[in-house]
Amino acid sequence: MTFTQILPLTDISGVSPADACSSPLARTAIAPESADALARSLKALSDPARLRIISIVSAHADQEACVCDLTDQLTLSQPTISHHLKVLVDAGFLTRAKRGTWSYYSLVPGSLGSVAGVLAAV
Amino acid sequence: MTFTQILPLTDISGVSPADACSSPLARTAIAPESADALARSLKALSDPARLRIISIVSAHADQEACVCDLTDQLTLSQPTISHHLKVLVDAGFLTRAKRGTWSYYSLVPGSLGSVAGVLAAV
Repeated sequence: MTFTQILPLTDISGVSPADACSSPLARTAIAPESADALARSLKALSDPARLRIISIVSAHADQEACVCDLTDQLTLSQPTISHHLKVLVDAGFLTRAKRGTWSYYSLVPGSLGSVAGVLAAV
Repeated sequence: MTFTQILPLTDISGVSPADACSSPLARTAIAPESADALARSLKALSDPARLRIISIVSAHADQEACVCDLTDQLTLSQPTISHHLKVLVDAGFLTRAKRGTWSYYSLVPGSLGSVAGVLAAV
């Protein structure tokens, strides 16, 4: 096989009809499985009350807040706050520890920064 | 009024019942209005198809993609893709330009990085 026989095949495979409309791809786009995982993380965060909970927790000097801090600062019922806390624990942004009367919630170190980093590079 | 008369008042105002359970606040938490705005942006992004659309657009050399690129790469109906594109345009992540037969979508420069930055600092 000569070079001229290979060249047309290479050219045709490199130019799909879609590529002909736009500029060439500079990199590959996000994989479908990665998009699914990122969307799940973002969904857990895309609620004003959950963002405020994370912010109140991370605003404390040791990034841990008693559940009583949250009920004090959010004008939401206890069951609603508990639901939001469960979503954030399940999504890997908070951990829970029970000490005495109260539950304490801590920010998982790097969890927010990790999602933000993946999002910025989408 | 003496110093000893002022001191107890100052101490009491500085320690709410909530503060007594947790470490002190190192900074203020996100304002409710800012949490609302960030949640709206994250909601627009928290869908696998929308993340893939943004990624396909930004993967192109000039961060612009023909709508035909998207229909080629996503296994979704044209109306579904149009719905996702509208959500992303309305949320300020994409802009749309019509040239000839096709619509072209461009990434709004800095829009993803801005949301990622706010999220990382929540």
